[in-house]
Amino acid sequence: MDYQKILEEISLEIKPLFGLGKVANYIPLLSKVNPNKFAMAITLLDGTQYKIGDSNEVFSIQSISKVFAFTLALESYGIKLYDRVGVEPSGDPFNSLIQLEYEKGIPRNPFINAGAIVITDTLLKSFKDDKTTLNKLLEFIRDISDNKNINYDSDIADSEMSFGYKNMALANLMKSFDNLYNEPIDVLKIYFKQCAISMNVKDLSRAMLYLVHNGSDPVTKKEFTSLRRIKRINSLMLTCGHYDASGEFAFHVGLPGKSGVGGGIVAVVPNILGISVYSPELNSHGNSLIGTKALELFTTKTGLSIF
Amino acid sequence: MDYQKILEEISLEIKPLFGLGKVANYIPLLSKVNPNKFAMAITLLDGTQYKIGDSNEVFSIQSISKVFAFTLALESYGIKLYDRVGVEPSGDPFNSLIQLEYEKGIPRNPFINAGAIVITDTLLKSFKDDKTTLNKLLEFIRDISDNKNINYDSDIADSEMSFGYKNMALANLMKSFDNLYNEPIDVLKIYFKQCAISMNVKDLSRAMLYLVHNGSDPVTKKEFTSLRRIKRINSLMLTCGHYDASGEFAFHVGLPGKSGVGGGIVAVVPNILGISVYSPELNSHGNSLIGTKALELFTTKTGLSIF
Amino acid sequence: MDYQKILEEISLEIKPLFGLGKVANYIPLLSKVNPNKFAMAITLLDGTQYKIGDSNEVFSIQSISKVFAFTLALESYGIKLYDRVGVEPSGDPFNSLIQLEYEKGIPRNPFINAGAIVITDTLLKSFKDDKTTLNKLLEFIRDISDNKNINYDSDIADSEMSFGYKNMALANLMKSFDNLYNEPIDVLKIYFKQCAISMNVKDLSRAMLYLVHNGSDPVTKKEFTSLRRIKRINSLMLTCGHYDASGEFAFHVGLPGKSGVGGGIVAVVPNILGISVYSPELNSHGNSLIGTKALELFTTKTGLSIF
Amino acid sequence: MDYQKILEEISLEIKPLFGLGKVANYIPLLSKVNPNKFAMAITLLDGTQYKIGDSNEVFSIQSISKVFAFTLALESYGIKLYDRVGVEPSGDPFNSLIQLEYEKGIPRNPFINAGAIVITDTLLKSFKDDKTTLNKLLEFIRDISDNKNINYDSDIADSEMSFGYKNMALANLMKSFDNLYNEPIDVLKIYFKQCAISMNVKDLSRAMLYLVHNGSDPVTKKEFTSLRRIKRINSLMLTCGHYDASGEFAFHVGLPGKSGVGGGIVAVVPNILGISVYSPELNSHGNSLIGTKALELFTTKTGLSIF
Repeated sequence: MDYQKILEEISLEIKPLFGLGKVANYIPLLSKVNPNKFAMAITLLDGTQYKIGDSNEVFSIQSISKVFAFTLALESYGIKLYDRVGVEPSGDPFNSLIQLEYEKGIPRNPFINAGAIVITDTLLKSFKDDKTTLNKLLEFIRDISDNKNINYDSDIADSEMSFGYKNMALANLMKSFDNLYNEPIDVLKIYFKQCAISMNVKDLSRAMLYLVHNGSDPVTKKEFTSLRRIKRINSLMLTCGHYDASGEFAFHVGLPGKSGVGGGIVAVVPNILGISVYSPELNSHGNSLIGTKALELFTTKTGLSIF
Repeated sequence: MDYQKILEEISLEIKPLFGLGKVANYIPLLSKVNPNKFAMAITLLDGTQYKIGDSNEVFSIQSISKVFAFTLALESYGIKLYDRVGVEPSGDPFNSLIQLEYEKGIPRNPFINAGAIVITDTLLKSFKDDKTTLNKLLEFIRDISDNKNINYDSDIADSEMSFGYKNMALANLMKSFDNLYNEPIDVLKIYFKQCAISMNVKDLSRAMLYLVHNGSDPVTKKEFTSLRRIKRINSLMLTCGHYDASGEFAFHVGLPGKSGVGGGIVAVVPNILGISVYSPELNSHGNSLIGTKALELFTTKTGLSIF
Repeated sequence: MDYQKILEEISLEIKPLFGLGKVANYIPLLSKVNPNKFAMAITLLDGTQYKIGDSNEVFSIQSISKVFAFTLALESYGIKLYDRVGVEPSGDPFNSLIQLEYEKGIPRNPFINAGAIVITDTLLKSFKDDKTTLNKLLEFIRDISDNKNINYDSDIADSEMSFGYKNMALANLMKSFDNLYNEPIDVLKIYFKQCAISMNVKDLSRAMLYLVHNGSDPVTKKEFTSLRRIKRINSLMLTCGHYDASGEFAFHVGLPGKSGVGGGIVAVVPNILGISVYSPELNSHGNSLIGTKALELFTTKTGLSIF
Repeated sequence: MDYQKILEEISLEIKPLFGLGKVANYIPLLSKVNPNKFAMAITLLDGTQYKIGDSNEVFSIQSISKVFAFTLALESYGIKLYDRVGVEPSGDPFNSLIQLEYEKGIPRNPFINAGAIVITDTLLKSFKDDKTTLNKLLEFIRDISDNKNINYDSDIADSEMSFGYKNMALANLMKSFDNLYNEPIDVLKIYFKQCAISMNVKDLSRAMLYLVHNGSDPVTKKEFTSLRRIKRINSLMLTCGHYDASGEFAFHVGLPGKSGVGGGIVAVVPNILGISVYSPELNSHGNSLIGTKALELFTTKTGLSIF
């Protein structure tokens, strides 16, 4: 398949959509990104990359980090994790407290905010202190991306912290139901740093390879998790990866994927390739508007939907 | 792959699970089925079938009929259908009114009861009267199953009608929001007949072939819908096919599927095969307990999950 | 106190409010009433009446009938009634299904629609058939109003029935939770007739006397219920008489009262008087806009709030 | 009326109820109170007091403080307050986040926790710093109780703070909706001290006099608020004073009142007397079980319900 040609076609076809979405504005720093950026990258199992647009531009990966933290938590904590977080779609926006209260502090899945906070809490419990926890997560992400320079943006982390009332509400609610080991504030300090990790689409498509393959890196041969677990993770990305638009993403794109409010999306074509797209304008569900469309075009053009 | 051997292994491994679930008891007729029945069948693209257990036993397909009605409605009504029913997982039990009221009478997806009632309403609008509507649906199911003898069980339909207060509540609520064309009672009369259609696992696995393939029957060459649409239908089965256990089914089985309270489940391995299982004892989510496990064993043994 | 003068003052002060509300339009017949009608009447314990405006104009009492049906059900069914209906404010609009589903078919109180339907079901169970049930209720209302000519408007009842999908949904939902003895349709046929009873403000203020006094009529000496029960009924009117604006009514008016979408409101000043007001334009909560204001002016001018 | 005799009768009649409720145990200090304590006091308009039981025993007034803080906030902030907090019963437990999220951070009324936190936030805004705010509130309570020695228990305040995750969740949720001026933690520090104020039933029944009378103290003649406002406050206590058992309290007791999880309840007989009862065992709604019964006996024996 001529992936480069497909990327070029897509980059032309999405042009009319600029200006239709809205850059995230819940923190000042994110609202300042250039709305016209666009980038897309594909990494094949042998490491070959195709890319188009601003593919060196790093951006805040935000909720995409939930996939990495979840993988690490599964490894360090095992299936006991499922006592504390479910595997069902939430049917609600990413930060709703309603379901969480009805379900007594057990979040629906690890890819909504409440679930991701539980995951970070688990990592903090496993790795004991905040520094080690963050380092373990960064190491993991550097390993799967094969890029030692990946780091988080402390200005963004600080800014998220100072506007993070909704997440504080979620964390405190779970703590009141005894579903956090650590103090809410301590968990959130790590969580906001994790969300503020900066990567570009090349890094992100590369980072998908362990999910494309069998849990190990097909190039470096490092082992990260089991085949059984990557099937679980991919299934969760499909059913829960896009908040209350997860059904729509599955419906239109047909790939396991995960989006972040920074404008990035990652997706997996099992056994074939990892893909990532970046465009900061969001649709009404908080997912990259152009990014979603670009991935829909990709599966239409290639026939690579899983369905 | 030696499908027959795999079916035999599965039929042994699920033996210890008999007695752990509960046969549906909301209508007297369903509660009388033999809880020890078990059947499983596979149909390949060329029509070859593998089967085990009580594979000639017909049972009430119940909610599995929603897949067939939805396909027919898409053909007769087109994408305007999506103004009246969504494509998101509901995160709630199959018959919850809560979400329906908050969302002003628009059901989350066509595979929860409210959504299926809207679909039947659409068919009745398209085909004008109840007789024609039911006949069109039966014809379609006979065509895709390649079995002219399929029919509905009028005793079960009558029994459902006389205990159908919850569905009457759903239909009336949607009517109050102007999301039904016809009178609630007229729609439900057809709906309950549709749910009371009787098939066996051979019929059902055969009926999946149009979803396995490209919307047409690979054996008879009859065309039913487009490739684009079967991808949508499969995606919806994956994210919404098992009520509030859809995430768990995707997580453990990893195939698009649809269950019914009669104890049947159908599933699709894209491009390869259709599969169906029958075991009337249900788990707490209203899905066949042994059926779900049998399908999990199937994807584990064959590696045929879509993830 | 010069009640006549107070009524005259009020009738002047509410003039600027005409046109600010909206006449009920969920059934065609109600939407045709003259929005400029206004009437108010007071009946003292000795039967003396003061009135102003269109006090002979009869109108559909609608939800005000819930007070009378509840009184009758308490007498015929006793305190077992509280197993089937609560005594708490609902905090939700009059016809919400959400709370009803969470609370397994037990309505919050007898003055929301679901609760009133349970009450009518109870009357039908007690009095065996629809004719007797309706006659018993009419007799009771004629007795407490001391007016033998009160009847229901069958055109309005029919019209409510043909648009009554929301109430059908409520009734069917409760039936599915086993909280109706009779078939939903049979209960609603009586319920809509009960709501379509026509009275004027003189009748209604007179009808309050048994609640003003000790459960018996201070003029005719007929006994209807006990002192203990009228305290319960008055307390329920205060906390639950105006749907999700009950708190506001208590806050601004400070009297036990009940409104109907026909534009009428009744209220009770314990030990002193019954009062009724009529003005068909409704506020956003479905209560008479001018009627509510008129009663607020009444308690401000007379100091007769219970607080 | 022989109030002393009535108190004596009540104190005998409630004896069999000891042991049926449960002392609050969400913080260790509260769980250690003696469950067998019982006290009741009445203060007439002229200051005469009647009392029985452990009437010198001080206890944590907890949510009763919401009445005092609300009165003070009305005085210092005026009716703009109603933009930030409603006047409707919540129909939900005292600490539910669900309604708060649906209603975009505006609490239903000032007597549920979320509403009381908004009130404390308002006081902090009016009085600028935490010390002044707490002092103003203490001064007000000392004034209306005519007892200069009233203070808060700092051990209880600290303990509440360290277990106050649910309230932190509420405060952060409201802050995320822009309905707090100050930082959640700063508001809660004052809020928990306010809840930890210690008083006995004599103080509390005395403190009601401004609500019995016309907003001023009938003995000391100090003016606290207007007649109009005490009617509002009394109405709110009646409809919202007992969380999701407010309707039941109105139904059985028939007086404006407010309870606290410390086991205290206050109530008002307009124009006649203030009353308070203390018994630490709570019913399932978090209100004093024996206290509620004692007040029901009081209105039954005296006929002093407002209905």
